[in-house]
Amino acid sequence: MNPVILNRFSSIFMQSSKNIAVVGSGLVGSLLALYLQKAGHKVVVFDRRPDIRKVEFSGRSINLAMSNRGWKALREIGIEIEIKKIALPLDKRALHVSSQPLYFQPYGKKGEAIYSISRGVLNRKMIDLAEAEGVKFRFEEKVWDIDLANARLYTGESEKSEWKEYQYDLIFGADGAFSRVRHKMQRNSRFNYSQHFVDVGYKELTIDANPDGSHKLDNASFHIWPRGEFMLIAMPNLDGSFTCTLFLPFEGEVSFESLTTEAQADAFFETHFPDIKEEISNLKRDFFKNPTSSMVTIKCFPWTYWDKVALVGDSAHAIVPFYGQGMNAGFEDISVLFEKMKQHGDNWEQIFLEYQQERKPNADAIAELSCRNFLEMSSKTADPEFILRKKIEKRFGEKYPELWLPMYSRVTFSDKPYTEALAIGDWQRAVMDEVMEIPGIEEKWNSQKVEDKMLEIIKNNGST
Amino acid sequence: MNPVILNRFSSIFMQSSKNIAVVGSGLVGSLLALYLQKAGHKVVVFDRRPDIRKVEFSGRSINLAMSNRGWKALREIGIEIEIKKIALPLDKRALHVSSQPLYFQPYGKKGEAIYSISRGVLNRKMIDLAEAEGVKFRFEEKVWDIDLANARLYTGESEKSEWKEYQYDLIFGADGAFSRVRHKMQRNSRFNYSQHFVDVGYKELTIDANPDGSHKLDNASFHIWPRGEFMLIAMPNLDGSFTCTLFLPFEGEVSFESLTTEAQADAFFETHFPDIKEEISNLKRDFFKNPTSSMVTIKCFPWTYWDKVALVGDSAHAIVPFYGQGMNAGFEDISVLFEKMKQHGDNWEQIFLEYQQERKPNADAIAELSCRNFLEMSSKTADPEFILRKKIEKRFGEKYPELWLPMYSRVTFSDKPYTEALAIGDWQRAVMDEVMEIPGIEEKWNSQKVEDKMLEIIKNNGST
Repeated sequence: MNPVILNRFSSIFMQSSKNIAVVGSGLVGSLLALYLQKAGHKVVVFDRRPDIRKVEFSGRSINLAMSNRGWKALREIGIEIEIKKIALPLDKRALHVSSQPLYFQPYGKKGEAIYSISRGVLNRKMIDLAEAEGVKFRFEEKVWDIDLANARLYTGESEKSEWKEYQYDLIFGADGAFSRVRHKMQRNSRFNYSQHFVDVGYKELTIDANPDGSHKLDNASFHIWPRGEFMLIAMPNLDGSFTCTLFLPFEGEVSFESLTTEAQADAFFETHFPDIKEEISNLKRDFFKNPTSSMVTIKCFPWTYWDKVALVGDSAHAIVPFYGQGMNAGFEDISVLFEKMKQHGDNWEQIFLEYQQERKPNADAIAELSCRNFLEMSSKTADPEFILRKKIEKRFGEKYPELWLPMYSRVTFSDKPYTEALAIGDWQRAVMDEVMEIPGIEEKWNSQKVEDKMLEIIKNNGST
Repeated sequence: MNPVILNRFSSIFMQSSKNIAVVGSGLVGSLLALYLQKAGHKVVVFDRRPDIRKVEFSGRSINLAMSNRGWKALREIGIEIEIKKIALPLDKRALHVSSQPLYFQPYGKKGEAIYSISRGVLNRKMIDLAEAEGVKFRFEEKVWDIDLANARLYTGESEKSEWKEYQYDLIFGADGAFSRVRHKMQRNSRFNYSQHFVDVGYKELTIDANPDGSHKLDNASFHIWPRGEFMLIAMPNLDGSFTCTLFLPFEGEVSFESLTTEAQADAFFETHFPDIKEEISNLKRDFFKNPTSSMVTIKCFPWTYWDKVALVGDSAHAIVPFYGQGMNAGFEDISVLFEKMKQHGDNWEQIFLEYQQERKPNADAIAELSCRNFLEMSSKTADPEFILRKKIEKRFGEKYPELWLPMYSRVTFSDKPYTEALAIGDWQRAVMDEVMEIPGIEEKWNSQKVEDKMLEIIKNNGST
């Protein structure tokens, strides 16, 4: 318990203490539980899975890229510093383009970085912190049904076994993309819902640490091997290893379906990733050990039911991982919810209404941006024209920060709404399309003339 | 049993007889059962509801508009003539525009009509016909789970009661928009799914017959009272009554939410439908008796599971009712499935693959057209410019049938793919936008000059 923070909270809050159930002990569920408990509520977290602190990790994780929105939510509750200890800052992309020298592309301004964190390590830490604050966890207790109007939960061994009934004042669904809480809401009339899978799957692979515990690749970079239809990425861990993710079509010429023997996998890695020959043996080892996972975009509305039930994180808006914003968007849900709690006290109906109104368009925007970013990462990062665009944008943005905040920075290093990033990003692309038409742009990209031309285009096109 | 038809079928079919379950005894389920039984299979139909022949109708039906695709499927199985006996042909819209004289707008060429049929009456008839052919019906037997890979069904009193297991060779899900069969498929990875509700609800109302059994309004017309944000429609029944449907926003100034007292309902009908004062008492009577229903567009993919399970009709592609194509599209699924059965014999995997490949884009197209048509019916039919467009199109289409088949006719009176109707409809609208720019078009719409201009635009724009 942290009495200083508790005091700060109790002075802000005018809420009566409620009995609250959070379904799901993942990142968003455990952070939400911590927030609610610190705000004076009594929180129980249900999870159908075992305590992640007592089991091996799944082998199906992509490392997390914590950025500004995520840190902000941790800072507000006083645990940013604690979590930074288990994170590694990455201030650039390391682009491993085929037959090209390694190229580093900074993410933002000096000092700006995204942070690589192992999902499992972070989740364990978050549960520890929530438990220390007084949150109760009920692991391996499966929620099968929810009486939405009365905030009642039903748990049991199986869907057909005897169920136990729990009564709460509020229930939060933080139970991920295949949320049971949302599933119940989905059966109501007029609940809009969509799940869309992409044709690309992913597999977790590992590059082990050197014998001395050091990293085999630069550990302050987000490594990408862009290969067009597919790509490999690698993010460093504290122990010297890298968690890699191979994104590859499920079906087709080069696909998971086409790689079924060790010989085929060998040939695949040797053909497409010759620059990491040394590390490749680990990749091959994991290839047949770890599962192939799918990726889905989930949209729904409404996110809340009266003043009783609300969805947060993936259960409300699962997105594909290509912008590194899934967890960040989920944590930002909590920041927004918390703002509304401060404004509206015990009026939970109003809190929930404003929460979903504010978050829904932003969730849709980051879903769209995340889908688009696969192409950027897997293809465009290997394209000299694209690299030139980024350099021009970066130079201009540093000189005229009030006129030009690159879209990636707006998403990653600011807390401006995702909807703005989407709209302004489209506008910026149109501007850059014009800039790239300037004859000889390859040579004079950093000239005064190009800069003046950009100022002129922006003047004629409206501004950010 | 009809031995002539059976003979015809057995000469065509090279399929081994299978044990087949159809889930859902609605229109599509019972027609599919009839087709499969006549093709030599042994068919059992499950339905969680009671036998519709033994209960009152729900009070939440919109009359059906059977058109070419529906008739074609009935003709192929030899029951078109039988069903025409319970249908009334409607060859025109009767437009009851506020403060305007009643206006009749023909649907197509002379002899072309859509057919009004009561959903309940047709469903009862279809079940009779299927039963006479040897199909077994298990009413009030609730399917709770399906083992897709093994074509096993589980039924029982409730989700938590003891279940009975059935083993089949094939299972068809014809269990409607909220299909249990699809629900099971939805839990598989990489199953794409969306449900989107419109903000407009509907309510069934009735205009009774005159005391002598005659109709109170013209009985060869589809009646529309277009009121912009909302509309009333009326379709005749054989007994002299009309089944009316009020489409009205759920919320807002004029909405179901705003009509909660008899006085409010009285004022609403008297203000907006003064031309049917005499009939209005019936409308008001039903208003508080019948439920308000919602409308949903459902899309999903895949529609089939190996060679074991397939979805047909609303379970695969529920659409809003504004083009009158829901049942017609479902019946066309059966026609296509039947074609594939003839081509591929016992290769059910191939049958299912080609069936879903051919039908999915067409289902998406009619979903889109149906959404758009609400605006056409509720607003545009009251717009003189829109009426003029239709007149010009009709005149031109009659003169140059190879150049111009109006979109409504392509959807309703042809069996050309819905995808073409959507694409060509967009092209036709662009052409008509140009035509309507001709100065003085209101006066010279039927002149040679306008005709020549249309020919010229078409020549420059490609053609149908």
